[in-house]
Amino acid sequence: MADYYDALETRDPERRQSELIEAVAAQVRHAIKHAPACTEMLTGVDPRDITSPDAIAALPVTRKSDLARRQKAAPPFGGLTAHDLTAPATGHIKYLFASPGPIYELATHRENYWRFARALFAAGFRRGDVAHNAFSYHLTPAGAMGDSGCHALGCAVIPAGVGQTDQQVATLQDLKPNAYIGTPSFLKILLERADQLGADVSALRKAAVSGEALPPAIRRTLSARGIATLQSYATADLGLIAYESIADDGLIIDEEVYLEIVRPGGGQPVADGEVGEVVVTTLNPDYPLLRFATGDLSAIRSGLSACGRTNRRIKGWMGRADQTAKVRGMFIHPAQIEQVLQRHDEVTRARLVIDWVDESDRMTLKCESLSTDPALPSAIATSIRDLCKVRGEVQLLAPGSLPKDGIVIEDAREYE
Amino acid sequence: MADYYDALETRDPERRQSELIEAVAAQVRHAIKHAPACTEMLTGVDPRDITSPDAIAALPVTRKSDLARRQKAAPPFGGLTAHDLTAPATGHIKYLFASPGPIYELATHRENYWRFARALFAAGFRRGDVAHNAFSYHLTPAGAMGDSGCHALGCAVIPAGVGQTDQQVATLQDLKPNAYIGTPSFLKILLERADQLGADVSALRKAAVSGEALPPAIRRTLSARGIATLQSYATADLGLIAYESIADDGLIIDEEVYLEIVRPGGGQPVADGEVGEVVVTTLNPDYPLLRFATGDLSAIRSGLSACGRTNRRIKGWMGRADQTAKVRGMFIHPAQIEQVLQRHDEVTRARLVIDWVDESDRMTLKCESLSTDPALPSAIATSIRDLCKVRGEVQLLAPGSLPKDGIVIEDAREYE
Repeated sequence: MADYYDALETRDPERRQSELIEAVAAQVRHAIKHAPACTEMLTGVDPRDITSPDAIAALPVTRKSDLARRQKAAPPFGGLTAHDLTAPATGHIKYLFASPGPIYELATHRENYWRFARALFAAGFRRGDVAHNAFSYHLTPAGAMGDSGCHALGCAVIPAGVGQTDQQVATLQDLKPNAYIGTPSFLKILLERADQLGADVSALRKAAVSGEALPPAIRRTLSARGIATLQSYATADLGLIAYESIADDGLIIDEEVYLEIVRPGGGQPVADGEVGEVVVTTLNPDYPLLRFATGDLSAIRSGLSACGRTNRRIKGWMGRADQTAKVRGMFIHPAQIEQVLQRHDEVTRARLVIDWVDESDRMTLKCESLSTDPALPSAIATSIRDLCKVRGEVQLLAPGSLPKDGIVIEDAREYE
Repeated sequence: MADYYDALETRDPERRQSELIEAVAAQVRHAIKHAPACTEMLTGVDPRDITSPDAIAALPVTRKSDLARRQKAAPPFGGLTAHDLTAPATGHIKYLFASPGPIYELATHRENYWRFARALFAAGFRRGDVAHNAFSYHLTPAGAMGDSGCHALGCAVIPAGVGQTDQQVATLQDLKPNAYIGTPSFLKILLERADQLGADVSALRKAAVSGEALPPAIRRTLSARGIATLQSYATADLGLIAYESIADDGLIIDEEVYLEIVRPGGGQPVADGEVGEVVVTTLNPDYPLLRFATGDLSAIRSGLSACGRTNRRIKGWMGRADQTAKVRGMFIHPAQIEQVLQRHDEVTRARLVIDWVDESDRMTLKCESLSTDPALPSAIATSIRDLCKVRGEVQLLAPGSLPKDGIVIEDAREYE
């Protein structure tokens, strides 16, 4: 047990799957009862019917862009939080945060609110460690996310934040923290500045990085300095989603979320291994986000981690799913392509390719289909014109022809 | 009771005084046992003898400048914290902070660690309030000090920090906090920026300000906008020292500190009403600072507050006590003048006046004394040369001749 944060991490995979489905059903019941927006969004849904991945996949998706709109319409949280929280007089809310957008987030007094302790534990953080937390604490939840994870584990925190590089280096030298939390690029800046100043920061032994990609070259540089660096993937709304336990071995899904990889712009799960948008249902009762589309692309990695944890892994961040493109003056969103597909069951997958031909934008929807109905292409073209307000060509392909890279709108324009 | 934070605030003054002296004696016993630097500093002190203000006044003073030196010699806290904290493996430490100097501070998991909730309560903060906390959270404890006070009261916090003025204004408009914590000058900046942007921030109704003086003009401006503003006085090492409950009515001393006003550079209490250095003994068992000289000047204000709290009041911040001056190339500190006085019991008070005569620094020690011994002035002059390494003249005055303004070294040089 000493090597795992809790017993959930080594559950039998089938048991985990059935427990998670039960937990999602309970969360849906809770959200319908306590979060007004969910009550409305889930009209007609009976939580007792949620007994399989397919049943979960039939629930509506909430997009990050919906969040901004819903919050504007029903401040501050769009009716998506459990309703006792909208009356702050209860004293349950610990923090309110503001992210650009603006999108507002919250934290209650629930210990380890963002579930970040699990990722820190996997990165080797233990009771008595001293962590230099270089995430910002101002308006954004990143700093508090690191703090709450550390405090749940019994680690002390230096709330370093961003900026004041020289003072941070002096603090690393004097207080000798053995752990770092923050972006990998800022850790590199601190170490380089320490070298310039001749400061001894060799007490640092481990780093839990997040917030941006971890390039292999930076991980190697850190490793050469004796700093074991593992990354995690979290968002301000959902908290922890997945975390590394072994370098370059994929990110293990957090035990308290239900994760799907879906067709960008839609909600249908893709096959394991295929790139799609990360959609997460959190089990946090205070903020029960159901099938929340993160806008991030990733894919399921096959097999299990060598560390002994039995949960599925994702490949990490593979780009943004919001592939909006401007074609002949009109914005085209992946959600519009999804709507086109919903009108034509014969099409299983599609990819809109935009190129530049004869001094003009050309838009071609490449569709995988088994159908040979000669009327299908023109029917699809009519749907494109209806739903996208821009004319597009249609090309039918055999199933399996399109790359499985999560790209729904490919901008292939090359201007001479 | 509803109008007071706790029953301590309305104690009979004599009972408070005897309870505080007992608490200081217990704290000295605790510090001798658990803080190695106190064990050494208080050799020969028997806590059972601490039964009066005079007995407390006989204990050694620890100066802010000692703190930096002691921390450098015995990192990180100079042996001044209770020793179970120097082994972070116990998990008691929540935060470590760095102030310029550098001086390092800490917070344990003790609720309301800096006792700031009492000041916020007096400023009208109540369960369910939403506070916009515009103190920095990065390296300094100011942000966390506001947070811990709010959370002890059940208020939600927006961790705004410093900077990002426009995003802070948008957050004030959207999340509608009714309370502000931070410096008065930054609140003024936020309100002026809100006016420029046409943002409605009228939800703000109360402000607890600290960290700098509150000019009456700013208080009036805030009051005219419907924001009741009260100030408090706290330091990173000690936490809360005193707080307002009524505007311009003096700062009531915190119930969990023992406060003295002493001769700057020395440790002897001055008479009530006289300006001197604020020296504080905290009852915090985690960091038992005994007779800590803040370097700030203040004075006891006579009488009691109209609010019903029965503790003594101070007049607020009246300048810095560290009146170091450079005379003919040598630094002269108030502590050196104190040492001169300790050699001459006949002198009750003194003030060093430096002026510029005949193109040269002149230093005159004005001494209040009842003695008419003709040998006294030259004996004092010898002590000055011994202890300050600079020659000074001596002038004897009748007791009561010198102003009671806390000034030990007066720089009266005017260069033509």
